[in-house]
Amino acid sequence: MIKQLSREDIANMQERERARLINSLSGFKSANLVGTQDAQGNPNLAIVSSVFHIGANPPLIGMIIRPDTVPRDTLSNLQATGHYTLNHVNSTIWQQAHQTSARYAPGVSEFSEVGLDTQLADGITAPYVAQSQLKFALALREVQKLEINGTLLVIGEVFDIQLPHDSIKADGYIDIESLHTVAISGLDSYHETRRLGRLSYAKPEHLPRQLNLNGE
Amino acid sequence: MIKQLSREDIANMQERERARLINSLSGFKSANLVGTQDAQGNPNLAIVSSVFHIGANPPLIGMIIRPDTVPRDTLSNLQATGHYTLNHVNSTIWQQAHQTSARYAPGVSEFSEVGLDTQLADGITAPYVAQSQLKFALALREVQKLEINGTLLVIGEVFDIQLPHDSIKADGYIDIESLHTVAISGLDSYHETRRLGRLSYAKPEHLPRQLNLNGE
Repeated sequence: MIKQLSREDIANMQERERARLINSLSGFKSANLVGTQDAQGNPNLAIVSSVFHIGANPPLIGMIIRPDTVPRDTLSNLQATGHYTLNHVNSTIWQQAHQTSARYAPGVSEFSEVGLDTQLADGITAPYVAQSQLKFALALREVQKLEINGTLLVIGEVFDIQLPHDSIKADGYIDIESLHTVAISGLDSYHETRRLGRLSYAKPEHLPRQLNLNGE
Repeated sequence: MIKQLSREDIANMQERERARLINSLSGFKSANLVGTQDAQGNPNLAIVSSVFHIGANPPLIGMIIRPDTVPRDTLSNLQATGHYTLNHVNSTIWQQAHQTSARYAPGVSEFSEVGLDTQLADGITAPYVAQSQLKFALALREVQKLEINGTLLVIGEVFDIQLPHDSIKADGYIDIESLHTVAISGLDSYHETRRLGRLSYAKPEHLPRQLNLNGE
């Protein structure tokens, strides 16, 4: 049986209920930990489910953050140092990753509170998460306020990538499933994945064919 | 063994290889079909992997499109009618969904070319995909050019949602895994999911506990 929800039905929902519903609409979301540090080098870690691809050349990644709900530390830190890291959440750390969303007092390190380790790299003024298998560092390019609801679009350029050597395939594809990267649905549901397949570049003349993991 | 890629390594990659690599970085991506129609009512369908949540109240969804690579029809149609639909790609239509990315001649309907059916609804000047289980209609709110690389951020407000009655849980969460919604990695890999669990709202005092599907 099909349920239909109108604009009015949505507007009349209770706040938390609507938040869970609307957060489920976009589909599966990426699960990343944002690593930052303040001017004194104190580390901060926050989970984000709104990281998305903007462009490959230059390599640009976007993320949406709410000044009111996300630890303000993340925003002020990445603006202070100009750097932040994104670290894939995997199936061994998903519960610790979720716990970083608790409102710890400013100055408290979510790394130590949830039991994850910082990993520092030369020339990057932000900590990586040691337990994450695929991680990359970004230089802040812009913070744009979306006037329509006051959320912030943060855009960064990737300048360092660290991952297991054999997870990159010959054609550049990274097998993130083999790294046990998880996906999020709604506000609080975490999921492993099982590959249906890779498909060839679509052309009008014929249907796509299945590729192997190496893109062949 | 860990591989590290520097800014120079990334810049020196071959174009398609870099595109596959950078598109793999953000993590798992949502898989949606954008349904639109032109002023004459001719339907158009295109797969997008860049749909993301912007806010719940009002219910705002964003998507990034590249004027140069995405069928221009999608953009001109949603600007002409003011409406578009987003339809979850599921594990029964993932190959047809991928095929919509082929560059069909303008005016050709991807629906008929790939074998998906339009589903019309009163007051919505855009077609739904009949074979999609979770679908919603949006009223265009803004199209913003990201000057940093010329891509477009399209923001719409949700005004109609259609889904199986039992997929919405008591607390508003939609069990999109039960609808066989798929996730995308890179440019061409499709994935089913298996739930690890739902977690309670994180609080500093204690670790999150596992919730059941109903959020209890």
